[in-house]
Amino acid sequence: MKEKLRIGIIGLGGRGLGLLKSVILKFRDIDVVAVCDLYADRTEEGAKTVRRTRGTEPFMTQNYTEVLKKDLDAVVITAGWEDHIKIAVDAMKAGIIPGMEVGGAYSVDDCWELVNTYERTGVPCMMLENCCYGKYELTALHMAEQGVFGEIVHCAGGYHHDLRHEISFGKENRHYRLNNYLNRNCENYPTHELGPIAKILKINRGNQMLSLVSMATKSAGLHEYIVNKKKDDKELSDAQFKQGDIVSTLITCANGETIALTLDTTLPRHYSRGFTVRGTKGMYCEHGNYVFLDGLHKAFDFVPRLLFGNGRRYERKYRHPLWKNRKASAVMGGHGGMDGMVFRAFFDAVKKGEEMPIDVYDTAAWMAITPLSELSIAEHRVVQIPDFTRGKWKERK
Amino acid sequence: MKEKLRIGIIGLGGRGLGLLKSVILKFRDIDVVAVCDLYADRTEEGAKTVRRTRGTEPFMTQNYTEVLKKDLDAVVITAGWEDHIKIAVDAMKAGIIPGMEVGGAYSVDDCWELVNTYERTGVPCMMLENCCYGKYELTALHMAEQGVFGEIVHCAGGYHHDLRHEISFGKENRHYRLNNYLNRNCENYPTHELGPIAKILKINRGNQMLSLVSMATKSAGLHEYIVNKKKDDKELSDAQFKQGDIVSTLITCANGETIALTLDTTLPRHYSRGFTVRGTKGMYCEHGNYVFLDGLHKAFDFVPRLLFGNGRRYERKYRHPLWKNRKASAVMGGHGGMDGMVFRAFFDAVKKGEEMPIDVYDTAAWMAITPLSELSIAEHRVVQIPDFTRGKWKERK
Repeated sequence: MKEKLRIGIIGLGGRGLGLLKSVILKFRDIDVVAVCDLYADRTEEGAKTVRRTRGTEPFMTQNYTEVLKKDLDAVVITAGWEDHIKIAVDAMKAGIIPGMEVGGAYSVDDCWELVNTYERTGVPCMMLENCCYGKYELTALHMAEQGVFGEIVHCAGGYHHDLRHEISFGKENRHYRLNNYLNRNCENYPTHELGPIAKILKINRGNQMLSLVSMATKSAGLHEYIVNKKKDDKELSDAQFKQGDIVSTLITCANGETIALTLDTTLPRHYSRGFTVRGTKGMYCEHGNYVFLDGLHKAFDFVPRLLFGNGRRYERKYRHPLWKNRKASAVMGGHGGMDGMVFRAFFDAVKKGEEMPIDVYDTAAWMAITPLSELSIAEHRVVQIPDFTRGKWKERK
Repeated sequence: MKEKLRIGIIGLGGRGLGLLKSVILKFRDIDVVAVCDLYADRTEEGAKTVRRTRGTEPFMTQNYTEVLKKDLDAVVITAGWEDHIKIAVDAMKAGIIPGMEVGGAYSVDDCWELVNTYERTGVPCMMLENCCYGKYELTALHMAEQGVFGEIVHCAGGYHHDLRHEISFGKENRHYRLNNYLNRNCENYPTHELGPIAKILKINRGNQMLSLVSMATKSAGLHEYIVNKKKDDKELSDAQFKQGDIVSTLITCANGETIALTLDTTLPRHYSRGFTVRGTKGMYCEHGNYVFLDGLHKAFDFVPRLLFGNGRRYERKYRHPLWKNRKASAVMGGHGGMDGMVFRAFFDAVKKGEEMPIDVYDTAAWMAITPLSELSIAEHRVVQIPDFTRGKWKERK
């Protein structure tokens, strides 16, 4: 096992810089030896952060291929969505293990390239899906594994996050989401909560996603917001956004379950991941944070608010081992500790040379939802989901 | 305007008898002159109720066509789902105005027959969708009409009701739902909340439902329940249920909105209609009973429970005129007053000879969701929704 890791970080926008400061540089066994962004100001900002925190001088470049020429154990990819797979594939080819921030793919072929590169090179890769390490997502997983919900038949989740300001007020309109909202119409951010749901339903490990359908609403929220809040930006005020405000996706699974995903980012609302697990003996629902188990007194049937918040009690009872041990092994980082945990899991797997907890098949399957939903919306039909394990899901543990 | 109505009631199971006792017989301007059920014991029970309450002797029969030979103004149809349309069509042909309890259709052709019979005879018909008169459904409608939610882009709703006991413990297994769960797999109960949603989205009055896709989970909940709770019923314990536990349906509309419907009746959970309205300026969500409006303080972004229950405040502010006037015109009846209101609306329209508030086009469009969802699930594809108004929706008010 390696004592220390030499890593690079590619992509230093808001998310990359934030992770560097609040997570990566807090791990004493991680040395950041290279920083890279397409923009010089961001690259310099990343280097400054390393300098200030560690007193070391990282290699700086605006060309990520230069990073991959360095002697590195791993790279963290926090670039725009459109570059995740390309950089990850190049990293694997260079023998460097990539950890990719979340985001959907742009084509199913790209997802296959990720899988094929892994199978050819033997270099693993991981999607850094922090929500797989969420406190309640892990609690629900632990409850599911212990049969508390009975036979699981349905899960739901979504990315309910009002991003209107973030999308439209990025510096020089260069936020990576903007082009996506202008030019695409799809479930562009599926992996919160598909990640945690896939873990519960054992996707790629005894189960498989088979087919998908997505339907999108009209695009109204972002335009109305910009016309009201940023009218001086003539170009953006006149822009036609292609992305529907709400995209609903239904997925069928080999073992008979369904998954309902929702993308909901351009209308006023509170944040939620809408995480829901339904089984023959009970349910968990993030909206209200409660557990409902079979046989509960009839009083709760019509007054669910009496249950709201009882998730905290179940969290104490069914706390997942990963979460129990988090203080020993992880810094908290942002998002309630999830960020620290997912990075710790990635770095630990790299150090030990172990299989990634979210491996290339998970990454490919989850990211493929985006181009598949795009196709489903454009052609208004149900589409098949490829089996990236090529049949191995039946045997994989 | 008629002073009094002579009505018959067809179908005296739990729902029919309940409505007779708690709603219909409370209206002094309604005389129940005929009662009918396929089972003699139920027919007698209905007659006994009329006798006891009013001291009159209603005509009794087990054959509904005998009811339609009587001199009646209207019939209330509370039979099993499978007979609703047939009885309604025969009533219209007999010049008697039918009011139908909710339930899906069995074929799209049946829905067309309803429309064609109306257009041929000029006799109206109404679906007695009580949820269209729900306190919060009406509040949301009133808020939507006043633009509080901005441009509406998405609505959701469902029938989340644990019916495992009701389905499996019906007397002599003759509950009307049982056969449906054994033999069909579809969105079998779409009109809560499609009714209130259709009102908000102005379906058939400037808007139209265009296409639909449904996906069903495996069927696990009912079987497991029966094996555990009714194991002596050998026949039912061995039965294979065709109906999936959760059926998710997505609908697209002509004006660019989507509707998400959920049928969820055979797993443990609390009751909910999951009613949700989403617009560019705000939302209403029944789950937690709250309104979220644009510009709300950031604190609410991550702590939605601070909003839970504020629906009561908005209900006072945006109370619908129908609800304001309910005490003057309606008895309360069951389901929080909705039952009284929907029957009052039906009887008033019959007395005044006015168009029904939920007319034949609404009834046909809403009921058609059931056979269309059945087709969508069976053939795993998106299906078109017929335009029962034959283009008139563009002009109708």
